[in-house]
Amino acid sequence: MSLSTRRKSISVQTIRRLPQYLRIFYNFHTYGRELVSSTDLAAETHLLPIVIKKDLQSVGAPSKRRAGFKVAGTIHVIEQFLGWNNLNKAFLVGVGHLGAALLGFDGFKNHGLEIVAAFDTRPEKVGVPVNGVPVYHTAQLTSIIEKENLKIAVLTLPAAAAQGVTDTLTAAGIKAIWNFAPVNLKVPSDVVVQKEDIASGLAELCAKLKSR
Amino acid sequence: MSLSTRRKSISVQTIRRLPQYLRIFYNFHTYGRELVSSTDLAAETHLLPIVIKKDLQSVGAPSKRRAGFKVAGTIHVIEQFLGWNNLNKAFLVGVGHLGAALLGFDGFKNHGLEIVAAFDTRPEKVGVPVNGVPVYHTAQLTSIIEKENLKIAVLTLPAAAAQGVTDTLTAAGIKAIWNFAPVNLKVPSDVVVQKEDIASGLAELCAKLKSR
Repeated sequence: MSLSTRRKSISVQTIRRLPQYLRIFYNFHTYGRELVSSTDLAAETHLLPIVIKKDLQSVGAPSKRRAGFKVAGTIHVIEQFLGWNNLNKAFLVGVGHLGAALLGFDGFKNHGLEIVAAFDTRPEKVGVPVNGVPVYHTAQLTSIIEKENLKIAVLTLPAAAAQGVTDTLTAAGIKAIWNFAPVNLKVPSDVVVQKEDIASGLAELCAKLKSR
Repeated sequence: MSLSTRRKSISVQTIRRLPQYLRIFYNFHTYGRELVSSTDLAAETHLLPIVIKKDLQSVGAPSKRRAGFKVAGTIHVIEQFLGWNNLNKAFLVGVGHLGAALLGFDGFKNHGLEIVAAFDTRPEKVGVPVNGVPVYHTAQLTSIIEKENLKIAVLTLPAAAAQGVTDTLTAAGIKAIWNFAPVNLKVPSDVVVQKEDIASGLAELCAKLKSR
């Protein structure tokens, strides 16, 4: 089965669980473990062993019969699958509470993302680095995207401002937008948008509660 | 088909999309629209009409042949499904950037959640309301949960502190935890936990990018 065929059959839910597996495998790797069983993984994740097995097999994780998944090999295939073996230079627009929270999260580098610049329009934000990341005025977006060769945009700005900034970004050649603004962005068909909706997690929680 | 049978067949992905549909239906309702077609919804959400149709039919949204889904009726069934027709009193633990971002989000009341109290251990946070929500010292958790009859906990605190607070919460009778801390919580089997993993959305974005 070719990688592209394999990729098609992988569900969004599996993809969403991959970072969790990756962190656990990194951890085992640090402690020098070479093999991890799906039962061990179940204890860490609270997922069913069969779900874990299916998830990892779907990305082609190497395993040893009756002993479990190979730690180094599984890290490699997950990183490959997500493209997290290379760092993508990213920037963030909107340094409010959520923007600051994301800039304060040091884990992105393990996830292929390096946020190297942030933008805001408010004079009190511009020029004040957050967790070491410089904050520029939004008017400088296009020039800094080019200069720094930035690839991925993280939008943490109010809904009303999001589409205008998006138009600037796509005109500047940005092809990937991680959108935390509560609005559906209109983009050219070759631009990938991942929309985060805080209410989605709440809906999951409430559906679980109701089904009790 | 009974509601409980129907519920079992609904995928997590469908549940995660329900808040988005709900917001669009609220909006149409405000403008006095009585029927909305899945084509109209596709234009708003950028989802395929067939996905939308399947999602809404799975929660039992009422429709009119060839005219679309009934706006008021669909709002009703989605709210019912998620339990969002009643407000659940919630509280938040950890008033850092992410906690402040969530406290600043006024949309939760439309999603069945009313955050009425926040907790932190830092002296400079305690006593300073955020977006009108009072901030108490974490030592007061148990007494205020009882006094205010709080039901849902939102955890936005560091990983190292999360399990200790969780033990306090479950001892106080809390049955639902929305966990933003990067750790898998150990809880009694009758407690529902919804874990948010910021890296899951990034994994989705990267998988989409790689499949281009």
